[in-house]
Amino acid sequence: MSLSRRTMLSRAALLAGGALVAGAAEAQDPHAGHQHGAPAEPPPSPPPAAKRKAPAARKEKEGKLPYTPVITPNGRTLPFRMNGGVKEFHLIAEPVQQEFAPGMTVNAWGYNGSTPGPTLEMVEGDQVRIYVTNKLPEATSVHWHGILLPSGMDGVSGLSQPRIEPGETYVYEYTLRQHGTYMYHPHADEMVQMALGLMGFLIVHPKKRPDPPIDRDFCLFPHMWAIPPGAKTPDPSVMLDFNLFTFNGKIWPGTAPLLIRQDERVRIRLANLSMTSHPIHMHGHVLWVVETDGGPIPKSAWWPETTVNVPPGTTRAFEFVADNPGDWTLHCHKTHHAMNAMGHDVPNLIGVDKTGIDEKLGKLIDGYMTMGTTGMSEHSEHAHHMKGVANTIPMMTGDGPFGPIEMGGMFTLVKIRKDLENLDADPGWYQHPPGTIARKVENPPDFGELE
Amino acid sequence: MSLSRRTMLSRAALLAGGALVAGAAEAQDPHAGHQHGAPAEPPPSPPPAAKRKAPAARKEKEGKLPYTPVITPNGRTLPFRMNGGVKEFHLIAEPVQQEFAPGMTVNAWGYNGSTPGPTLEMVEGDQVRIYVTNKLPEATSVHWHGILLPSGMDGVSGLSQPRIEPGETYVYEYTLRQHGTYMYHPHADEMVQMALGLMGFLIVHPKKRPDPPIDRDFCLFPHMWAIPPGAKTPDPSVMLDFNLFTFNGKIWPGTAPLLIRQDERVRIRLANLSMTSHPIHMHGHVLWVVETDGGPIPKSAWWPETTVNVPPGTTRAFEFVADNPGDWTLHCHKTHHAMNAMGHDVPNLIGVDKTGIDEKLGKLIDGYMTMGTTGMSEHSEHAHHMKGVANTIPMMTGDGPFGPIEMGGMFTLVKIRKDLENLDADPGWYQHPPGTIARKVENPPDFGELE
Amino acid sequence: MSLSRRTMLSRAALLAGGALVAGAAEAQDPHAGHQHGAPAEPPPSPPPAAKRKAPAARKEKEGKLPYTPVITPNGRTLPFRMNGGVKEFHLIAEPVQQEFAPGMTVNAWGYNGSTPGPTLEMVEGDQVRIYVTNKLPEATSVHWHGILLPSGMDGVSGLSQPRIEPGETYVYEYTLRQHGTYMYHPHADEMVQMALGLMGFLIVHPKKRPDPPIDRDFCLFPHMWAIPPGAKTPDPSVMLDFNLFTFNGKIWPGTAPLLIRQDERVRIRLANLSMTSHPIHMHGHVLWVVETDGGPIPKSAWWPETTVNVPPGTTRAFEFVADNPGDWTLHCHKTHHAMNAMGHDVPNLIGVDKTGIDEKLGKLIDGYMTMGTTGMSEHSEHAHHMKGVANTIPMMTGDGPFGPIEMGGMFTLVKIRKDLENLDADPGWYQHPPGTIARKVENPPDFGELE
Repeated sequence: MSLSRRTMLSRAALLAGGALVAGAAEAQDPHAGHQHGAPAEPPPSPPPAAKRKAPAARKEKEGKLPYTPVITPNGRTLPFRMNGGVKEFHLIAEPVQQEFAPGMTVNAWGYNGSTPGPTLEMVEGDQVRIYVTNKLPEATSVHWHGILLPSGMDGVSGLSQPRIEPGETYVYEYTLRQHGTYMYHPHADEMVQMALGLMGFLIVHPKKRPDPPIDRDFCLFPHMWAIPPGAKTPDPSVMLDFNLFTFNGKIWPGTAPLLIRQDERVRIRLANLSMTSHPIHMHGHVLWVVETDGGPIPKSAWWPETTVNVPPGTTRAFEFVADNPGDWTLHCHKTHHAMNAMGHDVPNLIGVDKTGIDEKLGKLIDGYMTMGTTGMSEHSEHAHHMKGVANTIPMMTGDGPFGPIEMGGMFTLVKIRKDLENLDADPGWYQHPPGTIARKVENPPDFGELE
Repeated sequence: MSLSRRTMLSRAALLAGGALVAGAAEAQDPHAGHQHGAPAEPPPSPPPAAKRKAPAARKEKEGKLPYTPVITPNGRTLPFRMNGGVKEFHLIAEPVQQEFAPGMTVNAWGYNGSTPGPTLEMVEGDQVRIYVTNKLPEATSVHWHGILLPSGMDGVSGLSQPRIEPGETYVYEYTLRQHGTYMYHPHADEMVQMALGLMGFLIVHPKKRPDPPIDRDFCLFPHMWAIPPGAKTPDPSVMLDFNLFTFNGKIWPGTAPLLIRQDERVRIRLANLSMTSHPIHMHGHVLWVVETDGGPIPKSAWWPETTVNVPPGTTRAFEFVADNPGDWTLHCHKTHHAMNAMGHDVPNLIGVDKTGIDEKLGKLIDGYMTMGTTGMSEHSEHAHHMKGVANTIPMMTGDGPFGPIEMGGMFTLVKIRKDLENLDADPGWYQHPPGTIARKVENPPDFGELE
Repeated sequence: MSLSRRTMLSRAALLAGGALVAGAAEAQDPHAGHQHGAPAEPPPSPPPAAKRKAPAARKEKEGKLPYTPVITPNGRTLPFRMNGGVKEFHLIAEPVQQEFAPGMTVNAWGYNGSTPGPTLEMVEGDQVRIYVTNKLPEATSVHWHGILLPSGMDGVSGLSQPRIEPGETYVYEYTLRQHGTYMYHPHADEMVQMALGLMGFLIVHPKKRPDPPIDRDFCLFPHMWAIPPGAKTPDPSVMLDFNLFTFNGKIWPGTAPLLIRQDERVRIRLANLSMTSHPIHMHGHVLWVVETDGGPIPKSAWWPETTVNVPPGTTRAFEFVADNPGDWTLHCHKTHHAMNAMGHDVPNLIGVDKTGIDEKLGKLIDGYMTMGTTGMSEHSEHAHHMKGVANTIPMMTGDGPFGPIEMGGMFTLVKIRKDLENLDADPGWYQHPPGTIARKVENPPDFGELE
């Protein structure tokens, strides 16, 4: 089944509802499970108390799910069916063609039509049964990273089970005795299969809603790819020198913004199956690190951060109270990861007059642009009329309300608004109250010796 | 003295015993110091309580040492002698020829015949005297990483002492006023000497046995090496692009498994003197990070993890209760580190029909195999009859009970069994109880729109 | 204004004093704000209690500032002026020529004449106004990393404000409602601008002096640069393979030592805007990690370390009681970062007889030296009469009291003395009490089988 057809049917099913898919339908609805008017609490002491107001009255129905479902930006939660008290899921490992950005399509491997695969959501105490069908050209398996289960269900090919050969389907069964932010990924030919995109979130919700409740709960997979200019297939033999960087398989400005009402309590979950750490920075708030793939961190051990480092093979969840309205960025703080390719491994021309070079090279290489004499930002001015090499992405094309933002790759926006009725529609750019924006002064001050 | 001769004599000494080596003999015996029938406690609150049973009655003698000695898989603890109330050790820095894997011998530098060098075990309050003899071709020194001592004993060549020239012996003396997981390594020409393998564990046990007691205590050094195919000597000028990855100087399947009785409380200590972080993942259990090279972490600050990131120049110790029987893997979660060389920097042939290529290249380069068209796992099928370039390791040769495991490098097994009489003999593969193993289903399920 | 002229004037202003610069003058004085005879407390329980003595009586005046100012080794704090209750600063982004080490000058970008720029010091509750003038050849902006402020003051070019074009001045205003260790850096063409050196510390002191008080408070920016041999301009397109490593824009032995009186309580703040983590190791003490760029870590969550890993886009502050006198090193534990270039990417000649090679190549390449046959340390013997390629640094030139220290790059010294009257003058090398220094023994011991 192609991605588009599957997605279409999935949405149809959600509209149709039905006994077996009720939970699944709810799990698809990011609004489900919100509590009316329950003020999210500030982070526990010792964080500084944030003055909280009750969130705007909510119109959406009370969720019937015993949890607030997670939101997978640019992705989805996999529906499930109930079968004799067991939650059943079907994962399909398969090649996917995914558009990372307009004009840039990648031959990746994913689950059920996308990389990362759909998010699995379960509840502590659930008995689950997961069918895994292998439509890849080589054998695979699925490891449930962080889950406490019988060793025969651990998914290490050769060690805990035979490999799932192409065309075969295996079934995994276990009962969840924990909650937290976990992952699923192959434990067969790992180097190749994860480099090509086989991974997904496995979220286990606690039996009881957390106190304070979480109002908005997001999950993001930073990943990196080695795709030579003009090529479409990631190179799994690359260990270090990656050139494309994504959140949930998308390059900014293709990444969907995270929409939040002011004063909501928010959790953002991160997972990393790439070859290096990703220090994820969010602006405007103090972030409390509350979970790893080992489960919830005791409150006494929480760290406040504004950049949460996510090492390979780990997850991290952080929480904050969205008390600061505006359009905030969330991005990897390794600058190359947040600006993506094209500035990478080009000749260093800082301070070099390159008049005429682009024109001459442009005749040889379609769309070629050198590094700017004064840096890279002159590129952003040309981005919209740059043609580029076939199947590459232009760099730094994202515009903000004040011009080019000059970022790309692992970069997205967190939009926090006081009155945000529709949590699914981008509310546009934040309107700054008067006097709250950096302003140009015509005459630079004279500080004399105080400079 | 060659490694083999030294080891043989060392074992002979242990059998002979004697007043001066009594402690040392115990230190060599990984069974020494176990308490009979003392139930290991679950991790402290707030971790979820694990239901513990008393470990199987133990046959081995009560240890006379005031501590449970650590186990250095593929390595050993250095014996010591008592001299007027002072524990005396003799470290010899010297070139070593070490077999990383069958067919792969490396010209490394180590201590007392191996890389990493033997583990030093001491007790808080001990007065120690360590002789260091330099049999290397260049000057060296020894820094006792993390130890609180007079600055003249700190081992920084040029700063705290003269360099130990080839052929010279220096002596270090200090009294231990702390306990934890530390390291010894050169602080002279560090870039070269650590890249070539000079390093070892320095474990300081507390005066009082910990409560809850630790039943099994292991230490592992992940390290990485840059050895071009066919070469035998690591290249210390390489900063990033390493190609061989080891635990305690061995490449899996050469790494010795960690053997544990079910319900024992286990500590695993990790140390890193390489150029990048190693996120070490263990399956099936929640791991509590309890120590760094700064000493024990207060319990209120413990983090639960399943992947413990070990940055360069640090140690980390984690603890868990081995309540989940089976064969579990413990490996670096950087996939290249857990699969080792050969997939590294080869042409990307995913999706390319390479019929006949191997045969043609095989005539030019003995044993050459290209990357598989469908990934790397097809290599595991040929691994046993691959000849390979001289002095290289075949990739992914380790077989499990269900076929090739498709890993290598920084990878080992943790075998947890309910009834494990002999803690020195590999018990073979875990026998899964019925219904606890992923199984093949003949007909893939039809989930319709729920995919 | 050139760096030297500005510095000179700044010091003159400090001597002249005056109402508007009073605070600034204090901020420049690293002695200001010390409390007389107040015993610094040991780290809170559970750290092991350190026996503290009262610091030597202090001669300097009681500071009038409500905080102990930070010390920026090899740098300075930016003076400010008061204007109607608002603290005003003027930052100037501009190209700088900075001497990283004698004979090695770099075309960098910095603020007010240096990279990193001057440290900004503020107090929680302050209303601040910061003018930013752009004297760079491309547009820029300033992001106040970690600061809670209105989104229009957040400094993300295009998103929260227009870019500051060359020649323009913008003004930022906000009131501080937090304290901790933060940074300022561009959020425009980040990849280029941070690679070239645009960054600085932003320290926000608490309203009330901390209890226990901090006696000495330092801040250090590790950074790395890609400057090909003979070149002067860092290459911002390099993502991984950097070759020069600095603390506060200086290569050891050019880094200023950190001078401390015995038993003082010390804080060291680290910030990282480079492309990889820097694990910073300090000898002789247990370091408690007390802050990130998210603010103070609750005491219950402090970790003890001896190597504090600082991921990109983060800050870390650690504290310790300087109870161990001596000359201790503080350095990045990635060995290439602490030894700098030249050993990097050269042919591996360990074990190769290269007699005559240097002489032959020396005729072709001025000052060329190959890697030593026995390692790199033979270079330190020649370092003082090595000529080197134009505009490169000799490797490992720093001498200690016992000969070459064989380090470089991100490396500095922490000098702790019982009686240190002048906290601005290097006290020379530590004099070891008898019997506290590693000593040579003429006859290596015979441990027999205990080796």
